[in-house]
Amino acid sequence: MKKYSEMSREELLDLKKDLDRQFEEIKAQGLSLDMSRGKPGADQLDLSMGMMDVLSSGTDLKCETGVDCRNYGVPDGIPEAKRLLGEMSEVDPDHIIIYGNSSLNVMFDSIARSMTHGVMGHTPWCKLDKVKFLCPVPGYDRHFKITEFFGIEMINVPMTENGPDMDMVEKLVSEDEAIKGIWCVPKYSNPQGYTYSKETVERFARLKPAAPDFRIYWDNAYSIHHLYDDNQDFLVEILGECVKAGNPDLVYKFTSTSKVSFPGSGIAAVAASRANLEDFRKYMQIQTIGHDKLNQLRHVRFFKDLKGLHEHMRKHAALIRPKFEMVLNILDSELSGLGIGDWTKPHGGYFISFESMEGCAKAIVAKAKEAGVVMTGAGATYPYGKDPKDSNIRIAPTYPTLEELEKAAQIFVVCVKLASVEKLLG
Amino acid sequence: MKKYSEMSREELLDLKKDLDRQFEEIKAQGLSLDMSRGKPGADQLDLSMGMMDVLSSGTDLKCETGVDCRNYGVPDGIPEAKRLLGEMSEVDPDHIIIYGNSSLNVMFDSIARSMTHGVMGHTPWCKLDKVKFLCPVPGYDRHFKITEFFGIEMINVPMTENGPDMDMVEKLVSEDEAIKGIWCVPKYSNPQGYTYSKETVERFARLKPAAPDFRIYWDNAYSIHHLYDDNQDFLVEILGECVKAGNPDLVYKFTSTSKVSFPGSGIAAVAASRANLEDFRKYMQIQTIGHDKLNQLRHVRFFKDLKGLHEHMRKHAALIRPKFEMVLNILDSELSGLGIGDWTKPHGGYFISFESMEGCAKAIVAKAKEAGVVMTGAGATYPYGKDPKDSNIRIAPTYPTLEELEKAAQIFVVCVKLASVEKLLG
Repeated sequence: MKKYSEMSREELLDLKKDLDRQFEEIKAQGLSLDMSRGKPGADQLDLSMGMMDVLSSGTDLKCETGVDCRNYGVPDGIPEAKRLLGEMSEVDPDHIIIYGNSSLNVMFDSIARSMTHGVMGHTPWCKLDKVKFLCPVPGYDRHFKITEFFGIEMINVPMTENGPDMDMVEKLVSEDEAIKGIWCVPKYSNPQGYTYSKETVERFARLKPAAPDFRIYWDNAYSIHHLYDDNQDFLVEILGECVKAGNPDLVYKFTSTSKVSFPGSGIAAVAASRANLEDFRKYMQIQTIGHDKLNQLRHVRFFKDLKGLHEHMRKHAALIRPKFEMVLNILDSELSGLGIGDWTKPHGGYFISFESMEGCAKAIVAKAKEAGVVMTGAGATYPYGKDPKDSNIRIAPTYPTLEELEKAAQIFVVCVKLASVEKLLG
Repeated sequence: MKKYSEMSREELLDLKKDLDRQFEEIKAQGLSLDMSRGKPGADQLDLSMGMMDVLSSGTDLKCETGVDCRNYGVPDGIPEAKRLLGEMSEVDPDHIIIYGNSSLNVMFDSIARSMTHGVMGHTPWCKLDKVKFLCPVPGYDRHFKITEFFGIEMINVPMTENGPDMDMVEKLVSEDEAIKGIWCVPKYSNPQGYTYSKETVERFARLKPAAPDFRIYWDNAYSIHHLYDDNQDFLVEILGECVKAGNPDLVYKFTSTSKVSFPGSGIAAVAASRANLEDFRKYMQIQTIGHDKLNQLRHVRFFKDLKGLHEHMRKHAALIRPKFEMVLNILDSELSGLGIGDWTKPHGGYFISFESMEGCAKAIVAKAKEAGVVMTGAGATYPYGKDPKDSNIRIAPTYPTLEELEKAAQIFVVCVKLASVEKLLG
């Protein structure tokens, strides 16, 4: 296998001719495939259909303290839901608030609250000249959209296999009082599938931010989303680490069942120190009379406990593991040794992160689109949609069927090759 | 029946002796009754239990356009839910966004959005020195809490049987650019049960506010919550009136199924002009990936259409009408002609508004509490909890059983009498 960069101009031109032909053949098929969003496939959703049966007109709809879940009340969540999402978050239920159907919404509201009301009594951010956030990159586009929406300046921090570059994080947060937060997907990160190392978590917990209202936005979206039984990543629990480090208020931890049960019809939770939760509650009790307790009950009755959640996630893994492996196999067999791309091999989560040659990501995604395969937009994994090297592409293998995915991955590698050749030809 | 104010000191002292004895007897019973919140009774919740059966593991969970409601997508609501809540709101489905479980949450977010992002391109309110809201009084405590929470100055506007004092509303909004909104519960108002007259709605639609970002917050919470088949109030549809008046963007209209199906587990909607909805969408698409579409589907499959909703509301009415009538009968037979209180006789909604003699409301509510009956806090129906005459009390008859309610109402009238006598004795 010869590296593209070592090929002569003639070799590249020959290769291009062949790739152009392949590309035209693909286009002629008029395909319509989607590898763009981290959506579960229909077969995964079928796994939770039993949840549609656990509550019926014959069911007792009281929670364990006897409160009728059909009526107003218990704004911060029924006890059994706090316990379930507490177990999932590895946090005491006393440190949990149960929210509605979307943890992203809770993160958004946390920023909105900080803008108008400040964090634990500190100046509301909307009264400050400048507010900044650290953004490990590549990262989750919807995080970056929130901070962009509120006019918060975003600073890129490079990701490594062990998490964000902590030297840079420590230096920046200790020096700049305008830095109020950092977005983290600490386990099976979006898009790489990396899990922050023990050292990274400990260094996070020991941060000494210049801003007293600095918070780590710890979006533990994939805490139980393993692909393998025997090859799992482990993440150190950060709330406990923060307490140990004397920084109990440093972190907001978010979780949800969105890719456990039904996306959009799940339940979300935040875990934090009592003082932080007091901030959340002050806002929440004005914002709403309460969340959907019947859906909380539905989740608890279906999953029962952490064991039930893990059993359920093993069924998800059985369905999506072959998809990840198929994509990785195609990348391996088609691109290895060519020097035109690298990619991650995650043990969980929803994504594979692909790094093309510099300046090729947009071209690859455009070609894929032309060939009938929708990818996440190039640049989306960076703040403001600006990937400085134009090289990162997020691959989301879960939504298509295995058959569709195979086609999509094969088209993708042709697009990578073609864009790389064109780049080298100049 | 002699008016208390016409009694001699001796007569009042005799009366007080008798009332004190009655009050002690009541206290000795150690009761615990609740007439405080507009919560449906358990029998009302039973009416919707069929909703727990319409979706099951054997059900097709696609909406009418074929989208799988179990997955992400369709952020502003499935078409059949837009149609259902459109019918309920008397608005074209194209002017509807479906939200989550709480219309209060949508109102809160609308204020939060205006604070940080402004209304349709106008200056964000957090950048202004002063923002004011008009508050028809007495009114809904949770509305007032929202504006208070955001530091918005609230101005009382007296309510009449036909709605807010429109002379005052017109004058204030046309003169003061700092006035950005008004809270309205236009049908079966909270707490009076008044419905705005045709003239009131037309005058609202024709308002010429000094502030271009002034909006009417039209919380149509009780649009179909009639107590009688043959004695219903009718409210003119305001969005259409605003269009006619050349003010299409003047109003945000909110609704929800909270007291139709299950409070806290219902679906909410906003109806507004396209330009306003664009504002809502810009925020929403950053705030969340979407709302709970399975719950939208559940509601549509259960209620089917407006006819289904009306049939369902007739069943609610059959359960709560006797409660309203019992309270009104007790007030009538015990307090009529005494000159110590007036009260409303609503045709729908969830409340009766009681006006005591000036300076007696707090004392009455305190006495009721002492006797084991929780009422809505005196003052709660006014901004900042300050009822300038200390005379308004909100009675919520729906939650207790008929038997409990009878006791509670009888205790209430004793407390009214006692507090009034004590007031007159000075």
